[in-house]
Amino acid sequence: MGTSTILPDLGTQIVIPVCAVIGILFSLIQYFLVAKIKLSTEKPSVVAGKSRFAESLIEEEEGVNDHTVVRKCAEIQNAISEGAESFLFTEYQYVGFFMIVFAGLIFVFLGSIEGFSTSKQQCTYDSTKLCKPALATAIFSTIAFLLGGITSVISGYLGMKIATYANARTTLEARKGVGKAFIVAFRSGAVMGFLLAANGLLVLYIIINMFKLYYGDDWEGLFEAITGYGLGGSSMALFGRVGGGIYTKAADVGADLVGKVERNIPEDDPRNPAVIADNVGDNVGDIAGMGSDLFGSYAESSCAALVVASISSFGNNHEFTSMMYPLLVSSMGILVCLLTTLFATDFFEVKTVKEIEPALKNQLIISTVLMTMGIALVTWLALPSTFTIFNFGIQKEVHNWQLFLCVSVGLWAGLIIGFITEYYTSNAYSPVQDVADACRTGAATNVIFGLALGYKSCIIPIFAIAASIYVSFTFAAMYGIAVSALGMLSTIATGLAIDAYGPISDNAGGIAEMAGMSHRIRERTDALDAAGNTTAAIGKGFAIGSAALVSLALFGAFVSRAEITTVDVLTPKVFIGLLVGAMLPYWFSAMTMKSVGSAALKMVEEVRRQFNTIPGLMEGTEKPDYATCVKISTDASIQEMIPPGALVMLTPLVVGIFFGVETLSGVLAGSLVSGVQIAISASNTGGAWDNAKKYIEAGASEHARTLGPKGSDPHKAAVIGDTVGDPLKDTSGPSLNILIKLMAVESLVFAPFFATHGGLLFKFF
Amino acid sequence: MGTSTILPDLGTQIVIPVCAVIGILFSLIQYFLVAKIKLSTEKPSVVAGKSRFAESLIEEEEGVNDHTVVRKCAEIQNAISEGAESFLFTEYQYVGFFMIVFAGLIFVFLGSIEGFSTSKQQCTYDSTKLCKPALATAIFSTIAFLLGGITSVISGYLGMKIATYANARTTLEARKGVGKAFIVAFRSGAVMGFLLAANGLLVLYIIINMFKLYYGDDWEGLFEAITGYGLGGSSMALFGRVGGGIYTKAADVGADLVGKVERNIPEDDPRNPAVIADNVGDNVGDIAGMGSDLFGSYAESSCAALVVASISSFGNNHEFTSMMYPLLVSSMGILVCLLTTLFATDFFEVKTVKEIEPALKNQLIISTVLMTMGIALVTWLALPSTFTIFNFGIQKEVHNWQLFLCVSVGLWAGLIIGFITEYYTSNAYSPVQDVADACRTGAATNVIFGLALGYKSCIIPIFAIAASIYVSFTFAAMYGIAVSALGMLSTIATGLAIDAYGPISDNAGGIAEMAGMSHRIRERTDALDAAGNTTAAIGKGFAIGSAALVSLALFGAFVSRAEITTVDVLTPKVFIGLLVGAMLPYWFSAMTMKSVGSAALKMVEEVRRQFNTIPGLMEGTEKPDYATCVKISTDASIQEMIPPGALVMLTPLVVGIFFGVETLSGVLAGSLVSGVQIAISASNTGGAWDNAKKYIEAGASEHARTLGPKGSDPHKAAVIGDTVGDPLKDTSGPSLNILIKLMAVESLVFAPFFATHGGLLFKFF
Repeated sequence: MGTSTILPDLGTQIVIPVCAVIGILFSLIQYFLVAKIKLSTEKPSVVAGKSRFAESLIEEEEGVNDHTVVRKCAEIQNAISEGAESFLFTEYQYVGFFMIVFAGLIFVFLGSIEGFSTSKQQCTYDSTKLCKPALATAIFSTIAFLLGGITSVISGYLGMKIATYANARTTLEARKGVGKAFIVAFRSGAVMGFLLAANGLLVLYIIINMFKLYYGDDWEGLFEAITGYGLGGSSMALFGRVGGGIYTKAADVGADLVGKVERNIPEDDPRNPAVIADNVGDNVGDIAGMGSDLFGSYAESSCAALVVASISSFGNNHEFTSMMYPLLVSSMGILVCLLTTLFATDFFEVKTVKEIEPALKNQLIISTVLMTMGIALVTWLALPSTFTIFNFGIQKEVHNWQLFLCVSVGLWAGLIIGFITEYYTSNAYSPVQDVADACRTGAATNVIFGLALGYKSCIIPIFAIAASIYVSFTFAAMYGIAVSALGMLSTIATGLAIDAYGPISDNAGGIAEMAGMSHRIRERTDALDAAGNTTAAIGKGFAIGSAALVSLALFGAFVSRAEITTVDVLTPKVFIGLLVGAMLPYWFSAMTMKSVGSAALKMVEEVRRQFNTIPGLMEGTEKPDYATCVKISTDASIQEMIPPGALVMLTPLVVGIFFGVETLSGVLAGSLVSGVQIAISASNTGGAWDNAKKYIEAGASEHARTLGPKGSDPHKAAVIGDTVGDPLKDTSGPSLNILIKLMAVESLVFAPFFATHGGLLFKFF
Repeated sequence: MGTSTILPDLGTQIVIPVCAVIGILFSLIQYFLVAKIKLSTEKPSVVAGKSRFAESLIEEEEGVNDHTVVRKCAEIQNAISEGAESFLFTEYQYVGFFMIVFAGLIFVFLGSIEGFSTSKQQCTYDSTKLCKPALATAIFSTIAFLLGGITSVISGYLGMKIATYANARTTLEARKGVGKAFIVAFRSGAVMGFLLAANGLLVLYIIINMFKLYYGDDWEGLFEAITGYGLGGSSMALFGRVGGGIYTKAADVGADLVGKVERNIPEDDPRNPAVIADNVGDNVGDIAGMGSDLFGSYAESSCAALVVASISSFGNNHEFTSMMYPLLVSSMGILVCLLTTLFATDFFEVKTVKEIEPALKNQLIISTVLMTMGIALVTWLALPSTFTIFNFGIQKEVHNWQLFLCVSVGLWAGLIIGFITEYYTSNAYSPVQDVADACRTGAATNVIFGLALGYKSCIIPIFAIAASIYVSFTFAAMYGIAVSALGMLSTIATGLAIDAYGPISDNAGGIAEMAGMSHRIRERTDALDAAGNTTAAIGKGFAIGSAALVSLALFGAFVSRAEITTVDVLTPKVFIGLLVGAMLPYWFSAMTMKSVGSAALKMVEEVRRQFNTIPGLMEGTEKPDYATCVKISTDASIQEMIPPGALVMLTPLVVGIFFGVETLSGVLAGSLVSGVQIAISASNTGGAWDNAKKYIEAGASEHARTLGPKGSDPHKAAVIGDTVGDPLKDTSGPSLNILIKLMAVESLVFAPFFATHGGLLFKFF
C-alpha cells in the first residue's frame, strides 16, 4: 500500500540515509574546525611560529607564543588519551567476551522455543498467517544484538577520541579568551553528538533493509528480531555507564582524598599521581558512558516503537513510510540539531563568562521549538490521517495529530526536566545557595540539605514524565510512549553536544593546572566547567527521563509479546514482583556505591605509597608514576563492574524462568517507578553539592564571600558534600538508567521463551 | 450460628476483655515495681535514710547515700517531664483542632453519599438485603475516628509519663549496677507496651459491642464504621511521629552542633541550653511517637481484617467468634508477651554489660516461639475448619491451617527483619565496623559507606515481606495480609518494651551526665544505651514491616470497597498513579528533613545566643535558660509539621476527587513499594552511623582503638555521619510508615464517596 501517506516509500528510503550522512558530514566538519588548532610535542616550525605571531594580535591573548606550554599540553593530552584508550581496550575485551556469551544465550533461548525447527510457524498475533521459523528470529536477533553492541562501542570510542583530542586544544584556546575556548569545547561535543545520532540511525536503517531481504512480508518477525539491536546497545551501555562510572569516581575520590585533604595540594596538581587517572575518568565515564547510555535509549525506543508498529495497521498493511515514522523523526532531529548548533557556533558568539550558561540554555530552547515544527512536518508527511495501534490485544484507532502530540509532549517534558534540573543544580538559584549556606554549620547540615534538595527535585520531573505518559498512553498506548521517548531523544545530538562539553572543559582546566598555566587561564576554564556541571546534570535529567519512557515502552512491548493482557497489582505474583522490583535500584546502588568506595580506597593507598616512597615528589622535582594509578582504576572498575552487571542481567532471566511473566512484569514496573526517583535525586544532589562548593570557591556574591574563601570551614564542609556526591551523581545515579532499561529490553527479547517455558517455580507448587 | 467453632461466642465475649484487663493489671504491677525506687526533691527523712543504709550493703553500689545526687536527678527529671508535657499539650491542642475539623469532613463526605438520607439502603455486597443508612455509617465512622484518636493520645501520653518517670530512676539504679538499671528501664518499657496493647484491644472491643447495639445484624455497615478507629489512630500517629520526630532531632542536632562541635563540651553537658530539650525529644519522639505509630498499625490491621471478614462467610453467617479472630490473636499476644517479659525480669537476671543485648534478643525469640503456639491454639479454637473469604468480587475457600500460616508467616517475617536490622546496625558485626573503618578517610567515605549500607539492608527484609505477602495473599487474599500484619504486631507489647527501653536508657545517661555523677555510672548507662540503639532500629524495622503489610491490607480493602476488581498497571490512569505515588515518599522526606534542618538552625541560634550573652555559662557558674530552647523546639516542630501533614492528608482526597479510584490505587501501590525501601534504608543507615560512632568511642576492640579515641579525625568523621543520620533515622524514615498507612486508611474510609463522586477531572475530559 503506502499510498495513504504524502511521502512515498521511495522518498523514505532516500530521506533517512541522506539525513544520517548529513549528520556524519557535519560532525566531520566540526572535527576539522577543531583540528585547525595545532598541538604538537615537536618544537614549532617557522611557519607555525608565524601563524602564532599573527594570532598574538588578537585581544585578550595571553602567552600564546610560549611553546613549552604547547608541548606540555600535548604531552598531558597524550597521557590522558593513552589512559582512556587503555581502559577502553581492556573494557572492550571483557565486553567482547560477554557479548559472545550472551549472543550464544540469545540464540539458544530463542531458538529452543520451537526446538530449533526450520519449518515455518503460525504468527503470534495473526494466527491465520505463517511466519518465519523461531530459529530465524533467534539468528537475526543475535546478529542485531551484536550490531547494536558494535555501533555503541564505535560511537563511544570515537566520542572519547574527539574529547581527548579537544581537551588540550580548549586549554590552548583559553589563552585567547573564554569565547574561543567555549567554541572548541562545544564543537567537539557536537562531533560526538552528531556521530552518535547519525550512526545509530544509519546502522538501524541498514539492518532493517538487510533483514527485510530475508523476512519479506513477515514484518512481525522482522521487527521482533530488530529488538536485538536495542538489547545490544543497552548491554554495552551497562559496561560503559557502570564500568566508566566506577572508573571516573574511584580516580576522582582517590585523588581528592589524598591530594586535597591530606597533602593540601590543589585539584589537578601534577604532583598528584592519580591526576591523569582522574582526567581519563572524565572521558571514559562522562563521555563514553553517557554516550552509550543515550545511544541505548535511542536504539531501544526506536525498537520498541517498531515492534509495536509491526503488529499495528502499519505492519499489517505493510505501509513502509508510516512504519519508518520513528526513524524519520530521528532524521528530522539531525537536521534540527544541525541548525541549532549553528546558533551557538556561528550565528552568535560567546564573549564573556556570563554568556556561557545562556548560550547552552538557548540550545535547548531553540532545538525544542524547531523540533516541534519538525515533528509536525514529519507527522503530516509520513502518517495517514488515521490508523490503528495494537493495544494489549485490541486495535485502537489513532489520529495523526494525536501522534504529533505524543512525540511533542515527550520533547517538551524533556525541556521541562532540563530547566528544573538547572534550577536545582545551578548556583545561580536559591536551592544550591541554601545548600551552600548550610555549610556554615558544618558538613552534616550540608549533607542533610543536599539530600533533601535531591528528593525535592524529583517532584516536577515526575509530574512532567507522568503527564507525557498519560497523554501518549491515552492517545496511542505503548506506541505513544515509545515515540514520546523518541521525541525526548530527538534532539539527542544537541543534548550530547551540551553534555560532552562539560567533561571536555573539566579536562581543559586540569591540563591548564598541570601545564602550569596562569591563574587567569584557569579561571576561564573554571567558568566553562561550572556551566558544564549544570549541563551535565541536565544531560542526566534527559537520560533518566527518556530511560523512564523507554523502559515503559519496552515493558508494554514485553507484556504484549508475553501474551498477558493485564498486570494486576492485586494478584500476589505481581505485587511481590512490584515490591522486589522497587528494591532492586537500592541493591544496585548499594553495589555501585560500595564499588566506588573500595576502588577509591585502593587508589588512596597507591597515591599515599607514591608520596611516601618517591623522594622529591611533593617538591615537584620528581614525576609521579601516573600509569600505575591508571592501571589500578582500570582493573578495579572492570572487577567491580561484575556484581552489579550480573544483578541486572540475571534478574530478568531468573525471575522469568522461575517465577514467570506476571512476576517479571511486576519487577519491571517496580524497578521503573522506584529507580527513576533515586536516579533523579542522586544526580541532582550530587550536582548541587558540586556547585555549592564552586559557589563558595568563586565568591561571586556578597553571600558567597561570607562563606569563603577556599580552605575556610564552610568550604571544607562543602568539599565533603562534593565528595559524597561524586559516586551518587556519576556512578550509582546514572547507572540506574541502565538497570531499568536493560531489564526491560532483555525481558522483551526473551519474552517468547518466558511465555513458553517460564514460571517453573509456580508450576511445581 | 457460631456452632462451628470450639470456642463459643460467650467465651469470646469473656476472653477478650479478660486478656485486656490482665494486660493493664500487669502494666500496673510493673509500674509499682519501678515506683518503689524513691526519687524526691525533698531532703530525705530518717526512715528513707535507713532504707538506703540497708541498700548500701549491695555489691557494686556507688554513692547511693549521696542525697544531693538524688535531688539533682529529681530536678532534672522534673524539667524533662515538664518539657515533654508542655510539648504534648501544645501538640494535642493542634491535634484536637485537626481531629474536630477532620471528623466534620468525614461526616460530611460520607453522609453526602446518599444525600444525608435516614432511610435504609441496599447493601453494597449483598444487594438482596437492606442495610443501615449511609448517614449512620457517617456518624459511627466519625465516632470511631474520634475514639481511635483519643485512645492513641492516652496511650502515647501515659507512655511518655512512665518514661520520664523511669529515666532518673534508671540513673539512680545504675549506681547499684548495670543489671538493676536494666530491669528498671525494661520494666518501664513494658508498662508502655502492655498499656498500649491492652488499651487498644479493650477500646476496640467495647466499640464493636456498642456499635452492634445499633447495627444488629448489619455487620457490613458495622465494620465499615469501625474502620474510622484505624483512621483515628493513624491520624494521631501522624502528629506523634512527624511532630515528635522533628522535635527530637531539631533539639538533638541543634544541641550537638553548638555543644559538641563549636564549644567542644560533651554530649548532655548541663551547660548546653538545649540539653533538656534534647532529652525531652527522646520522650516525645521515640516514645510517644513510636507508640502512636505502632498503635496506628495495630488498629488499622485489626480494622482491615474485620472489614474484609464482615463480607466473608463469618460476616454473612454472623459467626461472632470467627469474626473476632483478629482480636483473639491480639488477646493471646498479651498473654504471650506477659510470659516473655518474665524471662527478662524474673526468670533470668542480667548481671554484666555483655548480657544486655542477648537478653533483649531473647525476648524477640521467646515471644515469637511462644506466639506461634498461641496462634495455633487460637486458630484451632476460634475458626471453623473451612470458611470463605471475600476476594475482589468472589468468595474464596480457606482452611483454618492456611490462616494459621498467614499469621505465623507475618510473625516470623518480623523476627527475620529484626535480626537483619540488628546485623546491619549493631557494632558487633562487620557492616557497622566497615562504616567505622571508612571514617579513616574522612566524613565523605563514611557517608558513602553508610548510605550504601542502608540501601543494602533493604534486600532481605523486602524478601521477607514479599514472602509473607505471597503466602498470605495466596491463601486468604487481603484477609490473609491483614492477619499477617496482625501476626507481626501480635507481640507488640514486647516489641514496645524493648523499643522504649532505648530512649529511657538514653535519658538515664543524660541525667547522669547532668547530675555530675561518676564516670563509671555514665559507662553503665552508655552500655544500656548502645544496646538501645540497636533495639530502636529493630523496633523501626518492625514498624515499617508491619506498616507495609497493613497498608497493603488497607489498600486491598479500599479496592474492594471502591468496587474496582483489577488495578491494571497497563492503563494510563493507574500507571501515572504508580509513578507519582513512588515519588511521594521523596517529597515527604524532603519536607521532613528540611524541617529538621530549619528547626535545628533556629535552635543553634538560640544556643549560640545564650553562650554569648549569659556570662559564666561556659564556666558552669550560671545556669542556661532551658525553657526557651524547649519552647523553640515545640513551636518549630508544630509549625514544620503542617506541610508534610497536609501532603499526607490531602493527597488521597485530591487524587480521589479529581482523578478517581484507579489513579488513587496506583498512588497507594506506588507509595507503598517505594516508601518501604526508603524507610528501611533511612532508619538502618542512621542506626549504623550512630553505632559506628559509639564503636569508635567505646574502643572495645583492637580495630576500634586504631580509629579512636574521642576527638581523633576518624571520630570527628563519625560524628558527622551520626548527625546526618539523626533526621534520617528518627524523623524522615519512620514518618514514612505514617505516609503509606495513613493514605491507605484514609482512602478506605472515603472509598464510598470516591466511588460515587470521584474522578471529576477525567469525567470532564
